[in-house]
Amino acid sequence: MEKILTGKMEKVVGKSVIRPDAGEKVLGRSKYAADYTPPGMLHAVTVRAPWAFLENLRVDVSRARTFPGVACVAVAADIPGTNIVPLVFQDQPFLAETRALFHGEAVAVVAAETLFEALNAADTVDVTGTQSTPCIDPESALKPDAPRLHGEDNIFKSYDIRRGDLEAAFRRSDVVVDREYRTPHQEHAYLETQGMLAEPDDTGGIRITGTMQCPFYVQDAVAAILDLPKHLVTVVQCATGGGFGGKEDVPSIVAGHAALLAWKTRRPVRMIYSREEDIRTMSKRHPSISRIRIGADSSGKLLAADVDYTLNGGAYATLSPIVLWRGAVHAAGPYNWEAVNIESRAVATNTVPNGAFRGFGQPQVTFAIESALDELAELLDMDPLEIRRKNIIGLGDLTATGHEIDSSCGMSEALEQAADRIGWTEKWKKKPVTPPSKNSDPVRGIGCSTTFYGLGLGAGGKHLARAGAFVQVEDDGTVRVYIGNTEMGQGARSVIGQIAAETLDAPFESVYVGRADTSRVPDSGPTVASRTTVMSGGAVMDACRKIRRALVTAAAILLDCDELVIESEVDRFFNRTIPGQSVSYTDTVKKAKFLRLPLTATGWFVSPDTNFGDDGQGNAYMTYVWSANIVEVEVDPGTLETRVLHHVAAHDVGRAINPREVAAQIQGGALQGLGYALQENLTLDGEGRILNAGFSGYLLPTAADAPLITPIIVEDPFREGPFGAKGIGEPPLIGVAPAVANAVDNALGVRVRKLPLSPEHILKSLMEMESES
Amino acid sequence: MEKILTGKMEKVVGKSVIRPDAGEKVLGRSKYAADYTPPGMLHAVTVRAPWAFLENLRVDVSRARTFPGVACVAVAADIPGTNIVPLVFQDQPFLAETRALFHGEAVAVVAAETLFEALNAADTVDVTGTQSTPCIDPESALKPDAPRLHGEDNIFKSYDIRRGDLEAAFRRSDVVVDREYRTPHQEHAYLETQGMLAEPDDTGGIRITGTMQCPFYVQDAVAAILDLPKHLVTVVQCATGGGFGGKEDVPSIVAGHAALLAWKTRRPVRMIYSREEDIRTMSKRHPSISRIRIGADSSGKLLAADVDYTLNGGAYATLSPIVLWRGAVHAAGPYNWEAVNIESRAVATNTVPNGAFRGFGQPQVTFAIESALDELAELLDMDPLEIRRKNIIGLGDLTATGHEIDSSCGMSEALEQAADRIGWTEKWKKKPVTPPSKNSDPVRGIGCSTTFYGLGLGAGGKHLARAGAFVQVEDDGTVRVYIGNTEMGQGARSVIGQIAAETLDAPFESVYVGRADTSRVPDSGPTVASRTTVMSGGAVMDACRKIRRALVTAAAILLDCDELVIESEVDRFFNRTIPGQSVSYTDTVKKAKFLRLPLTATGWFVSPDTNFGDDGQGNAYMTYVWSANIVEVEVDPGTLETRVLHHVAAHDVGRAINPREVAAQIQGGALQGLGYALQENLTLDGEGRILNAGFSGYLLPTAADAPLITPIIVEDPFREGPFGAKGIGEPPLIGVAPAVANAVDNALGVRVRKLPLSPEHILKSLMEMESES
Repeated sequence: MEKILTGKMEKVVGKSVIRPDAGEKVLGRSKYAADYTPPGMLHAVTVRAPWAFLENLRVDVSRARTFPGVACVAVAADIPGTNIVPLVFQDQPFLAETRALFHGEAVAVVAAETLFEALNAADTVDVTGTQSTPCIDPESALKPDAPRLHGEDNIFKSYDIRRGDLEAAFRRSDVVVDREYRTPHQEHAYLETQGMLAEPDDTGGIRITGTMQCPFYVQDAVAAILDLPKHLVTVVQCATGGGFGGKEDVPSIVAGHAALLAWKTRRPVRMIYSREEDIRTMSKRHPSISRIRIGADSSGKLLAADVDYTLNGGAYATLSPIVLWRGAVHAAGPYNWEAVNIESRAVATNTVPNGAFRGFGQPQVTFAIESALDELAELLDMDPLEIRRKNIIGLGDLTATGHEIDSSCGMSEALEQAADRIGWTEKWKKKPVTPPSKNSDPVRGIGCSTTFYGLGLGAGGKHLARAGAFVQVEDDGTVRVYIGNTEMGQGARSVIGQIAAETLDAPFESVYVGRADTSRVPDSGPTVASRTTVMSGGAVMDACRKIRRALVTAAAILLDCDELVIESEVDRFFNRTIPGQSVSYTDTVKKAKFLRLPLTATGWFVSPDTNFGDDGQGNAYMTYVWSANIVEVEVDPGTLETRVLHHVAAHDVGRAINPREVAAQIQGGALQGLGYALQENLTLDGEGRILNAGFSGYLLPTAADAPLITPIIVEDPFREGPFGAKGIGEPPLIGVAPAVANAVDNALGVRVRKLPLSPEHILKSLMEMESES
Repeated sequence: MEKILTGKMEKVVGKSVIRPDAGEKVLGRSKYAADYTPPGMLHAVTVRAPWAFLENLRVDVSRARTFPGVACVAVAADIPGTNIVPLVFQDQPFLAETRALFHGEAVAVVAAETLFEALNAADTVDVTGTQSTPCIDPESALKPDAPRLHGEDNIFKSYDIRRGDLEAAFRRSDVVVDREYRTPHQEHAYLETQGMLAEPDDTGGIRITGTMQCPFYVQDAVAAILDLPKHLVTVVQCATGGGFGGKEDVPSIVAGHAALLAWKTRRPVRMIYSREEDIRTMSKRHPSISRIRIGADSSGKLLAADVDYTLNGGAYATLSPIVLWRGAVHAAGPYNWEAVNIESRAVATNTVPNGAFRGFGQPQVTFAIESALDELAELLDMDPLEIRRKNIIGLGDLTATGHEIDSSCGMSEALEQAADRIGWTEKWKKKPVTPPSKNSDPVRGIGCSTTFYGLGLGAGGKHLARAGAFVQVEDDGTVRVYIGNTEMGQGARSVIGQIAAETLDAPFESVYVGRADTSRVPDSGPTVASRTTVMSGGAVMDACRKIRRALVTAAAILLDCDELVIESEVDRFFNRTIPGQSVSYTDTVKKAKFLRLPLTATGWFVSPDTNFGDDGQGNAYMTYVWSANIVEVEVDPGTLETRVLHHVAAHDVGRAINPREVAAQIQGGALQGLGYALQENLTLDGEGRILNAGFSGYLLPTAADAPLITPIIVEDPFREGPFGAKGIGEPPLIGVAPAVANAVDNALGVRVRKLPLSPEHILKSLMEMESES
């Protein structure tokens, strides 16, 4: 004990402590879903639709049910509860019943003694129906004669945001850019595929252990499919090998399936997706089409922004309505516009449902607006950094939704620090008037983007914007902390442990942060939207402050003084009126325990208020993260291959609780953004089948592809955040692709308006440019 | 859901709801320690000392370590932490090191792939040393030349209680009884033997699952033996097949052993005791010798009580100091004495350590004082009921420790109801002047006892007299409750669920009470001393009241009224100023959730103050349970076998939360008390070996032996208890044996002063009586 509780004691917030799960990960001791093998466990697999749009669906499982080793085969009719995944809309079945809307939609599930038997039995299931012509892209789906996939118009949701007199602003504009930008699917490519273990437990209900971001969504789903009361559904997150949004809603389905089989068989059932199955059937980043029309006066003052933003939602709504909302709110970028008009819609098609993915609807439209801004600067003959300097939001300015920014706005500082670090002034030069010839030496270019990111769920998810925590101090001073948000690799357990230690003045090493478990903490909303530090951190502070009050009482008794003169530092309480009089943290805890004071508490945090009216105006988010990305690239004019030389990413995170983890998030997000920018390209055939469902066909950036990435942490504290912190999960990806596109254009003189910036797409843009001129 | 949350709604406190674990027990679904078999689990056994007093101990495990299948053999030297079981004193090692003090003391532990391999390997361990002469009884141990087993005098602890001028009171006494009474060991004979599973877990620490009463003691023990901080030791109680005190301290040793092996092997290790091992080595009720000298005036007014009380503590102190304290505090019975002198001591011997057992030091001395009181009544020619009526404590009276009883005193009511029910007036007649001849028909007699029981830990365990709870209301209104006390068959989960439901006005069926888990609730002290209802019940009420405040806020908003006019009944909140205006509990919960109000809370309860001075005076307990037992027996003068015809047991429990469970506790305690009274007799040879370590040799009452037992519940509410409740776990056993002894004397005219009242002991008493006369 002593070795844990003593040693050099210093404040821990702001220190790059080693994350508590580092050891178990490095040593391979972390237990992921596939590492759980309780006695008597069955293996489960999913039977899927073989066509993207099947009507009059028939699923014949009679052969599978008699297959050796099979314990249970379930179809929609076998569901005791509701065959609807509970999410934003109530449109997606756990198992398709009358029609299947995408290639690979689940139609039956099989549990058997071995995985081999389960797979073989699944192969015997006969899935038939009327093969209708699938509708793969939103433009087709919006045609009047398109098949009805959702409602009357195939539109899941639309949002309009309007501020100011748009046409007047355009009339005053000296230059206008009007262009269309497109982005493809992106695959989350988390290290660990979807996986769930469901076990009937001694509550009389069921216990789910698995890889997930949102245990409370999973709890909702399992309660729904089994018609169980919530207190009999316990969901525990195990070690989770990445999420990136891909484990926001999807695990609800996997858990629902495993739970259904476990409930039917009264045995533990484990379902682990293969990589191919995972890529083929799980959510993706929405493909998008953005039409951007923006105008400025001759001085470069931005006047009018008119954005038309369309997302391909795929077969079911899943999270599309709120992905769309976030995209729309941020569509005009972090700029002072005189007038803004944003129209947006998410459209139903026959592809896999697209859903949450780091950035959540922002990267697509940010690629568009930030590319268009560079195109506008070019027309104005301006340095792209200069046009941003002139127009970015500062204190007192309004966002597109009319949110007046009154604090924590490090936009300008982020931009200037990034520009300084990369040497923008020395490096930037005008783009070539014509592209260099194929045989030229590689050319270099530099590009930037400025972006903002509304922290948390915002007004669109207001009723979920709360979080709880449970904190218990043991009599040796060690601390257990449970929160409702998950650790999926982002370092939440480190940050939460630091917040707890700092609030209690306990040594960081004595704090254990447990895995999310719905039976230990109240519904704390999803682990998304970079909200964990502020929301769960706030809840942990609330709990720790309650416990600290008991410690202050005990310290005052030990020091024989009034509680009002008690102050503390790490591992010590002292009487501030008498220098040198102090008691250790551990002795204070022991005294508090002896006094029978409570050292266990729950904490609760409700986000600062947000609002959003039907006019698209309001304080959409509690605060914003402000970011600048600057990328230097080298492009080979012959192969049109792009190599990133240096990527500087500056983010105003309010306060970095753990700078190393913040930097790691920035680096990870930057690399994932570079993949999105340059190479990732999920390919669907005309019938909605994913053709490259594997990492030999779907090309991810590897460590070898990683350029020099320089994270810059800007800290303009957020009053309501723990120790001033905001968040950093999503922002690092958002502005990467446009910075790269702008750099490629700067290097090569070719504007590419379609991601990825692959040699093929650059060549196509080059050819279009040549044919236009 | 609806079917669970609707239906006939009525207040649940005071209702005999079916205990929530009834179904799983009846269906055999409860998971006991031996039902846990995680993958990779090892089986563990204990190697034990073959002699009751071995000095210069040597344990050679070299052969065992090379035995096939053996994963680990550990001796004292292998313990990474402290080789002392943390309890009242620090005298007992987990594994004997230099000397073994009782026959069967643990000296090594073995873990192997199979139980068979573990047992075989254990057989090869060579345990040698100097065989000293064991000291089996306290009278030998107190001799000046006795071996030094503990300290300088072999006395673990002594307590004196003195009030008034004893000798003056004796001088005023017209009659005096001065007698010695003896009681033997009693075996707990719980259905499930000791058993523990230890698993290294993903906290980096260890998780213990097992059969136990006191998870926080187990946590202390495992942290000590492994030198782990407390937050890395998680202890979860599984279904527990009875405890009766035998799972208060002993599981700490079993868990320590299993944890040691799990820690060394980094594998799950399960240790399950065989019945023989369990009886041979685990704690017992202390054998006792009580010398009672009491005096009264000719009217029957009790004047002086002088009690000398000696317990055989066995080889280590374990809980003897506090068992002794409880015995001493209650030694003079629930009577108004003018003067009291109680001297008591617990003595070290070379038997298995004696410890906690239902009644905790009270049944032994109660047998003595209640027998003596009948002997005194006989001298006064008084009805034994009459002498009690005349002297029992009522409001305003003082106990032996000078505690003035100012509320919740149903002593008189219990006695009168019991007397009425059995028909005392009609049945009682004076005992025969001489015993009937061997050939006579069976003779009948009736006997009574009046007793009291200090609830909870009292001043002797004051710093442990607190408890915590965790309550979470899910958004469908269902409720999870966790407490720090355990369900071991006594019905705690039912009672706690009723208290939670009543406080929240939630339907009882929607409440789940989980198993005790040290990671979910703060140290709530041991589950002993009939304290769970008051302590954990109080903590649960505290938590539920916090949540109820949020519900009242939500209800006031739904009903558009002030919170002050909100009232509630089961499943409904209403505006008391407007008849008919109400909202359902479930809608109120949903609204509260939508409003982002916290529906999770911790609760805390600290017992009312108690105190106990060096003079043995003070308010020893927060309150008392008052009990009367009346027994009618039939004795065969030939075989001297006693049959109980009817047993009426009346107990003032304050308030019966669940009358059926209270009645079940009374019946169970009565039968266990009848076994103690009539037949249970653990037999040790002169070297301290237990000779009847099995249920063919140690005779327990079975269902076939059970007489008609009539429980009477008296309810004089305890202000500080939940809904007025006190407790009922221990009291039912305490007064049974003297009531039976008094009835046997009444039937046969033979006073037996040594338990059990077996034919042998009755015969011996008869022969002594004959030789005296």
